[in-house]
Order: sequence, then structure tokens, then C-alpha cells
Amino acid sequence: MRQFVIVGHDAPTTPDFSLDDLAGAAGRLDVLCRCVNSAFFLSHSIREDVRVHLVLGDEFTVRFEGSDLRRLNPDERSTAALVRQALEHREDAIGHMPAESSPGVSIRRMGFAETLEDVADAVTDEPTLLTLHEDGDPIADVEPPEDPLFVLSDHHDFDDEERSLLAERADERVRVGPEVLHADHTITVAHNYLDTHGYTEY
Amino acid sequence: MRQFVIVGHDAPTTPDFSLDDLAGAAGRLDVLCRCVNSAFFLSHSIREDVRVHLVLGDEFTVRFEGSDLRRLNPDERSTAALVRQALEHREDAIGHMPAESSPGVSIRRMGFAETLEDVADAVTDEPTLLTLHEDGDPIADVEPPEDPLFVLSDHHDFDDEERSLLAERADERVRVGPEVLHADHTITVAHNYLDTHGYTEY
Repeated sequence: MRQFVIVGHDAPTTPDFSLDDLAGAAGRLDVLCRCVNSAFFLSHSIREDVRVHLVLGDEFTVRFEGSDLRRLNPDERSTAALVRQALEHREDAIGHMPAESSPGVSIRRMGFAETLEDVADAVTDEPTLLTLHEDGDPIADVEPPEDPLFVLSDHHDFDDEERSLLAERADERVRVGPEVLHADHTITVAHNYLDTHGYTEY
Repeated sequence: MRQFVIVGHDAPTTPDFSLDDLAGAAGRLDVLCRCVNSAFFLSHSIREDVRVHLVLGDEFTVRFEGSDLRRLNPDERSTAALVRQALEHREDAIGHMPAESSPGVSIRRMGFAETLEDVADAVTDEPTLLTLHEDGDPIADVEPPEDPLFVLSDHHDFDDEERSLLAERADERVRVGPEVLHADHTITVAHNYLDTHGYTEY
């Protein structure tokens, strides 16, 4: 399984935002929506073996589960509507129990540290934690792990607390090329790297 | 210079569409907006040496010129607003003369064949035309040309006429991996391929 944790620093934590202003009043939710798009969409299908965790303002985490997703469309607005719907169910997320808001989409009352712990310690798989960062090693030099867990930041850099947590937990710090890319583009390149690795023909 | 021609089969050819329904009534303009995003955005800047040509319904072509762009933002809605603004100037595009609608954005009364001819025959550069298609050769096997011109289709495949035109004109037909990707993801991977090619360290 491929997993992506994306830290949304300015992201909304309540559902009272307009779908007409995702890049403004909704705290750059557009960035996170494009990350969801990049993580899941193939031309004619969805990558079922993918899980995405959007950390919203260090309060909630919205999880997208590829194998269960039913209403995901590629455009930003409809993905933002799924996030808003998840936030409408935030009161149902009690303790660390998730609340499902639509097929394959659920919300948890967890910030970044708790999400990372929850994901990294999952019993069903032991993911390798890779931080995607401009100071990392070239991804081409890293043997793709079987269950990669990529951690990315939105349009802001990781803050000090996040950085020290990642320094402690991450197995690798990688970058995808000489240029510094947006988070969603980075996800696309990481997928492509995993897709093509080991192939001599395709 | 890197150039991208994206053929929008369902795209609007008049400005009377709502920015609230890009994936519906606006003929999947969301796809083309994401292509513009992928073509231009780096994390903290814009790729100035890039030109994008959006072919709208085989009637008009909206050109984005990286070195002149001033008001491009990464979200779909604001890019769609630039396209709508270009379409508001469509009556000013007479013959093959462009009409500029905002800095770096102009509209031409040209369909796919004319745009391809116009771009491929430009005197200032002699681009190598690469069609991005699922039946192409792996991009990793192709030596990156100096001035690549990538031609992609939106969510529909090329139609028969486009296909035969490309068969006649294209230097290469390439694919970016074993999976078939959305057009915007393909652009991201193509950029990354060109960015990283020849680098042993970055």
C-alpha cells in the first residue's frame, strides 16, 4: 500500500467555508484537493491501493481510502465538498474513533503527531516513512519500499515541531528532482517512480 | 523551450459558463486548468521557459506564455477565469492575429491543425513534436529534445482526424509509465523527466 500524509497548515477545521473561494477563505484547501487527485486518479480508474491522510490545522485528519472511494471526482471543488462533508461529521469523531462521512472518507480527531503515530504503528502493515523535502536525497537513489508512507507539507514548510518529529521517525528524506515542486506534483512524480521502477519495458 | 498543446474536445468556445461548474457545464475545463497548473508551477516560482496552447473545441486556442504571465494562480477556478477572460476577447482575434486578454494570456482563432502548424513551423525555434499517448514508447528511452513540443488530449482520446495529423507530423510517440495517467499528471512527469535527465546529483 502507498500512503500519503499531507499537512495542511492553514486548512479549515470547521465546515463553514465556501466552495467558491478554496484558495482564499478556505485556507488553501485547493492544494490539499489537488493532492487527493494526484494520489488516486489514473486515466480510467482509481488507485485502490492508496490511502491519503489530510491533516487539517493539527486538529482533525480526513482519511481517503482508495478501495472504498465511490464519489471522488478529479476537480478541486467536488473534493473540497467531500472534505466539508467530513468536517460536518467532526462531532461524531470521539476520542480516536473515526466517523465516516461518505464512502471511503472518514474524519478523526487527530493532529499531525497522532496521525503519524497511528499510521506508522498500524499492525496490518509496516510502512516505511519517507519525508518529501527539498533537502532530501534523490528518490532515484532510494530502493522503493514495499509500503511507502510519504509525508508532505502543503504550500508552507514543515514547522519546527513537525520537523523534529519527522527527524525522529522518518526512515528516509527524499526529493523528486532538482526543482522544488508543489505537493500534488510531488505525489504524481513519486507514484510514477514507483510505477516505473524495475520495469525495463512498459 | 518546453511547449504543451492540450486538445480540449468538450471545452467552451464562448465565455458564458459558470466558474462554479467547471467539471460539468463548462465542458471539463477543470482538466485544462490543471494542465496549465502542471505546466507552469514550481514551488516558489513559474517556469518561464514554457508555453501552453489550450485548443478549445477546435475553434480557438488560448496561449499561456510563461515569461509574461502575471496573474496565474494554482487553483482551477482562477485559471478558468483567465480562460473565460480570453474568450471574452474572441471577437478581437481576427484571422490568425492574437488578442491578448491578460498579461501572458492570448486567444487565437485557430483549431488544432492550425495551431499545430503555427507552433511547429515557428521560425524562432524548431520544436520536436512528441505525442503523449498510452501506445507510445517509454519516455525514458527517448533522448530529451532541446525544444520539446508535447501534444496531449484531455479526458477523451484523440479523434481520427487528430490522430492522422499527429501520425504525419510527430517525431516521437511516448508514454510516461506503465499506468495511463490524466493529462495534467503526464505533464508533471514529463517535466520531471526533463528536469532530472542527465543529472547524477540534485
